[in-house]
Amino acid sequence: MPGLWFFFYGKDYAMIATGGDLRMFNDFRLIAGRPVYVQVKDYMKSLILRGALQGEQKLPSTRELSLLLKVSRNSVISAYMALEDDGFAYTVQGQGSYVSNAALPENTAAPVWSVDWKSRLSSRALLAEELDIMKRGIRAGKDTISFTSIAPDESLFDLDNVKRAFLERMSVEGNVLLNYGYAKGYKPLIDYLKQYMEHKGVDMRGKDLLITNGFTEGFDIVLSALGQRHGKVLCENPTHHTALKNLQLNGFGIRGVAMERDGIHLGELKQALEEGMYDCAYLVPSYHNPTGIVMSPEKRLRVMKLMADYGVPVIEDGFNEELRYSGSHVAPLIAAAGGGNSVIYLGSFSKVLFPGLRVGWVLADQELIYYLESVKRARSIHTSTLDQSILYQYLLGGNLEKYLKRARTEYKRKYELTMACCRELLPDCRVSGDGGLHLFVTFPEGFSTRELLAACRELGVIFTVGDMFFTDGTGQNTLRLGFSRVADDDIRRGIGIIGRTARQLLLG
Amino acid sequence: MPGLWFFFYGKDYAMIATGGDLRMFNDFRLIAGRPVYVQVKDYMKSLILRGALQGEQKLPSTRELSLLLKVSRNSVISAYMALEDDGFAYTVQGQGSYVSNAALPENTAAPVWSVDWKSRLSSRALLAEELDIMKRGIRAGKDTISFTSIAPDESLFDLDNVKRAFLERMSVEGNVLLNYGYAKGYKPLIDYLKQYMEHKGVDMRGKDLLITNGFTEGFDIVLSALGQRHGKVLCENPTHHTALKNLQLNGFGIRGVAMERDGIHLGELKQALEEGMYDCAYLVPSYHNPTGIVMSPEKRLRVMKLMADYGVPVIEDGFNEELRYSGSHVAPLIAAAGGGNSVIYLGSFSKVLFPGLRVGWVLADQELIYYLESVKRARSIHTSTLDQSILYQYLLGGNLEKYLKRARTEYKRKYELTMACCRELLPDCRVSGDGGLHLFVTFPEGFSTRELLAACRELGVIFTVGDMFFTDGTGQNTLRLGFSRVADDDIRRGIGIIGRTARQLLLG
Repeated sequence: MPGLWFFFYGKDYAMIATGGDLRMFNDFRLIAGRPVYVQVKDYMKSLILRGALQGEQKLPSTRELSLLLKVSRNSVISAYMALEDDGFAYTVQGQGSYVSNAALPENTAAPVWSVDWKSRLSSRALLAEELDIMKRGIRAGKDTISFTSIAPDESLFDLDNVKRAFLERMSVEGNVLLNYGYAKGYKPLIDYLKQYMEHKGVDMRGKDLLITNGFTEGFDIVLSALGQRHGKVLCENPTHHTALKNLQLNGFGIRGVAMERDGIHLGELKQALEEGMYDCAYLVPSYHNPTGIVMSPEKRLRVMKLMADYGVPVIEDGFNEELRYSGSHVAPLIAAAGGGNSVIYLGSFSKVLFPGLRVGWVLADQELIYYLESVKRARSIHTSTLDQSILYQYLLGGNLEKYLKRARTEYKRKYELTMACCRELLPDCRVSGDGGLHLFVTFPEGFSTRELLAACRELGVIFTVGDMFFTDGTGQNTLRLGFSRVADDDIRRGIGIIGRTARQLLLG
Repeated sequence: MPGLWFFFYGKDYAMIATGGDLRMFNDFRLIAGRPVYVQVKDYMKSLILRGALQGEQKLPSTRELSLLLKVSRNSVISAYMALEDDGFAYTVQGQGSYVSNAALPENTAAPVWSVDWKSRLSSRALLAEELDIMKRGIRAGKDTISFTSIAPDESLFDLDNVKRAFLERMSVEGNVLLNYGYAKGYKPLIDYLKQYMEHKGVDMRGKDLLITNGFTEGFDIVLSALGQRHGKVLCENPTHHTALKNLQLNGFGIRGVAMERDGIHLGELKQALEEGMYDCAYLVPSYHNPTGIVMSPEKRLRVMKLMADYGVPVIEDGFNEELRYSGSHVAPLIAAAGGGNSVIYLGSFSKVLFPGLRVGWVLADQELIYYLESVKRARSIHTSTLDQSILYQYLLGGNLEKYLKRARTEYKRKYELTMACCRELLPDCRVSGDGGLHLFVTFPEGFSTRELLAACRELGVIFTVGDMFFTDGTGQNTLRLGFSRVADDDIRRGIGIIGRTARQLLLG
């Protein structure tokens, strides 16, 4: 429907001999931070795609469109060129630009039919959704005091040194960083982390290191690479719920062993080892999630001796071991294994440095790493080289040490405050946690922290109910308090509310 | 074995009342770019860990160590404080620093035992290694002309705008970027890509988008989430070998359908659909890997009609579709599906922009994405927020358009050169490839490109043998030539060598 349009724009008078409805140009709105010509191109594309501009239709002249959209003529000229590059328009010499026919929806439509995707999903995908606590969790309202997070406090982040690390690394090898890397990881970071682990007392002979997208990918890769001779894994009870999820998703049965004051209960561990066969044990020796317990050095040795006796390899979650506030060096389990290869160590700085940089590592027997490397490559080619190189440069510059000094001081202060508030304000409960970013609270048997949560939520306080960490359906009387991102005042006020509410519920 | 040591250092004379062997301090070497005190701390740690400094042994005074290691006394003081922070030393007021006993290996050693990891691996891990062509590939020597890569040319990278994008994003929301993000992805990027896909003609109603660590993670997540009703997938033959690997690793049988000049062979496709049942089809409509063919718009429609007739959903690999040098807009298959939800589109800018930024996306039915989000969370929590935000800012700033203009011109020139060289210098063969970053060469039946490769390698030229792309054990007479990272002179010289060598082999 070509035709003649007339319109007034300021003092300009123009006649548009193209056709269509003039109002179509009324809804163009510029946004900041994006080149004008790109926005004009995108806008014209959308008019073409929704059929407002039709095949072989002449486009407004560049002068006309610049008046209509109130943008410079140069922007329109560039936009038309880009439109042509993208195959949405063509130019007829001396006549102007036309909409390309091939771009139009009516020329590209096949029969419309629908798939019932849910009925086609694997049991694994359905289970992943079912176990996805992020989809079940409650969200904090604006003024809610939330103890649910154990992510680091953003205000402690050391942005300047991250920027510096980025710029330094980019200027040294920017082109390389942006092209493909290696499945095993960025070599300088691998070498750095090997030395780092050696300084934790690990005998590195016969071992190798693979970089992963954080702890979770590392754990999932290890589990998928482990054959299921017995189909069962030992772990602490309670334990990290993401680990429980991934064990289930990988088809493993789970046998939990109770915790006591200084870590896993040895008697029960021995009993479990007597009673069953396990493909491996998953252990979190430091700032155990959710109990916050650090396994004592003596117990570490005794656990490792038991594992050796029964021939059960260990997957060690090095979670937060950097956050130790003070006291003597506690070597990881993999250090206790000496020259042996029975421990797979999973490391990450996520909770310590930056979770947004998805970088973790697997340290293990070198033959095992050789196979894990292929599994990693099949899953995601490699971990972001940019993330790895920024982390490397940041570590090399000694920033971890500086940052930890600051973070430990701050988290220690918050830990002590939270602990004191729990002791003072919570009735009838045991509190565990040797530091880290969270505490674990156990109320008397029969008490329900889900009921407590429902009541506290009304009063503007939320926390993580503990039952999801348990392997055997218990733990209804427990909760986890993450304090890393809660202000001092709110810690005191929030725990006060939890305490008062608990007291009321306990009274019945 | 405490004792007295004497040594001379320049004009200084010092008596060290600590004990041990003085030579132990001889192997300290400073490296650039790392704070001195951290290096001193690391060095002392390693002495403790290898037993050269023993439990309860007194450390040299800060003055002594500064002389021994030739570093400032302040560095030693900081190093000792850090050593203490890490639990490797303690201070006795007025007396000095001592090695902490708990840090020592003899106190942390459990029985050493070894696991035969290979015998404990899952069949999937073993298969991943077996199908890992990166471990089988030949590496290019220093002066070798290598046509094996189809990665982008690094020298085209636009480092300044990447840096700018990083700094802009960091200054807007640095703290947020470094903390945890969302499994679905970084919201501004999701919104940008939705609009981007809409401008390719996709009807976005009822659809949603998930960010992944590149194409590979997206593909693997989709395959693991698909139930196996029939356990079989249709694809082009030949096709992308990583896709073949991931299909096999996910337990799918593969039915390949031959390619012809303008894409998949419709007659054979129809026959395959008649003969079997498939969970889905995996298709690469643009710059198909390895043949370089762009499926014609008419064929796209006819393929989609066939898929609708037989009720087979499509996984569309949007590989390199941005690299179209010119000509009219070719809509992706998902656009042809209109308001239907039968196509899962996998996108990535890896080959176009920066493979080092591991960012891809899955565009599909919104209920399906809801489940895929949980699978993604279980695998790797989320994709690097830093990568996503840099990409977002880069795209927002209109840099993709500018970059593509440059890249298309350069790759087009190289494509034409490579095509001309193949036509002129290769004997008896068909060459396919409509652009992109590679061409595909087919020699007469019976010819072996593995033999050709062995001979060319001696002459300093390598390429990718084609058989690994085939689903049925054929393709021994084919090879892929990636030209994106080969200099013009080398393209001509390399293809000349391949041609002469092939001629000799053909003559027998």
